[in-house]
Amino acid sequence: MTKEHGSVAVRRGSIGAKRNPASQQAILDAAEAILREEGLSGFSIEAVARRARAGKPTIYRWWPSKAALLLDVYHGFKNLRQFPDTGNFEDDLRGFLNNQLIGFWHGGLCGTVFRSIIAEAQSDPAAAEALFAYERGRRKFAEQLVDRAKARGEIDPDSNSAIIVELIAGFAWHRLLTGRLDGSQDDIEAVVAIIGAATKKNPGA
Amino acid sequence: MTKEHGSVAVRRGSIGAKRNPASQQAILDAAEAILREEGLSGFSIEAVARRARAGKPTIYRWWPSKAALLLDVYHGFKNLRQFPDTGNFEDDLRGFLNNQLIGFWHGGLCGTVFRSIIAEAQSDPAAAEALFAYERGRRKFAEQLVDRAKARGEIDPDSNSAIIVELIAGFAWHRLLTGRLDGSQDDIEAVVAIIGAATKKNPGA
Repeated sequence: MTKEHGSVAVRRGSIGAKRNPASQQAILDAAEAILREEGLSGFSIEAVARRARAGKPTIYRWWPSKAALLLDVYHGFKNLRQFPDTGNFEDDLRGFLNNQLIGFWHGGLCGTVFRSIIAEAQSDPAAAEALFAYERGRRKFAEQLVDRAKARGEIDPDSNSAIIVELIAGFAWHRLLTGRLDGSQDDIEAVVAIIGAATKKNPGA
Repeated sequence: MTKEHGSVAVRRGSIGAKRNPASQQAILDAAEAILREEGLSGFSIEAVARRARAGKPTIYRWWPSKAALLLDVYHGFKNLRQFPDTGNFEDDLRGFLNNQLIGFWHGGLCGTVFRSIIAEAQSDPAAAEALFAYERGRRKFAEQLVDRAKARGEIDPDSNSAIIVELIAGFAWHRLLTGRLDGSQDDIEAVVAIIGAATKKNPGA
């Protein structure tokens, strides 16, 4: 259930154009195939249009930038992975970092794609809009991990879910962007320990 | 004293070439002037060479990439700011975020420059090398903030200085790269509270 979530709908809602589901899926499939077969360097709206037998204007009507289309494919890869729901807060944090962030990016296409989108967003407003909307949706979605632990009575109910998620995501982004995804397991444990200690019920009592 | 630190020396050491201090300063001055007067878009090795009346090969001998030179200028701007040493851990964390990271980047040239270097590092190996070395040095330097609090007996002596610094830096990078430096003060307080709670002596005892 947790895999059928939110952020793509949020983003699509903000585009505000009607889509034809059939052609849309054909375009996404073509985009994914190109990315898998040729990598990021072979990926362009032109190549996707050719492969999907769609017009470039059609693609641009639905995805206002290359980054927006890349993000949709990226998001599809991410949705193949389980979002953690172990019933234990620290295990969920571990799973979040290993499954959805650092482990998801490490050594493969997904990290390369996501780095490139972040980079493009720093100078291209359309890429920035796509990334920021996607990222906002993902962050909101990930907050459930903290909120569930609160609802179970496992952690301090006053814990700031948004900031906890952003500390973890920020740490992972930082590792990605400084080329340090390797050998992060001890450091992941250290992050989990810090967040665990910070959210303990009645700390210091 | 804490202002006369470390990371430039670390980085320069790794370049391993002798520099002539006079020309080097002239080049840095020219680079800074161009950046202040024309912004990032006017900044190029060519423009710096012209203004400093230096040869491009001379500049490249000392700074192997545009990103490396930009980082040196950026670092000069940063050194105009006090590195926090208030005698209190949470105040130091606040000062670190406000003075050296989010507040330093907000609304000005420095944030724009740093974003662009991070972006360039995602596709240009020379920029990556310069950024990663700089960032490693800065992180190492910032750890003193945690280590001093340990030495004062203020926080748990087992606190992981490196990970604490990276959580904070990662949070700030994330804000910078998602265009959310505005209105961060409440969130900075929330970050400080989380790190404060996580490093309390004998938590839960």
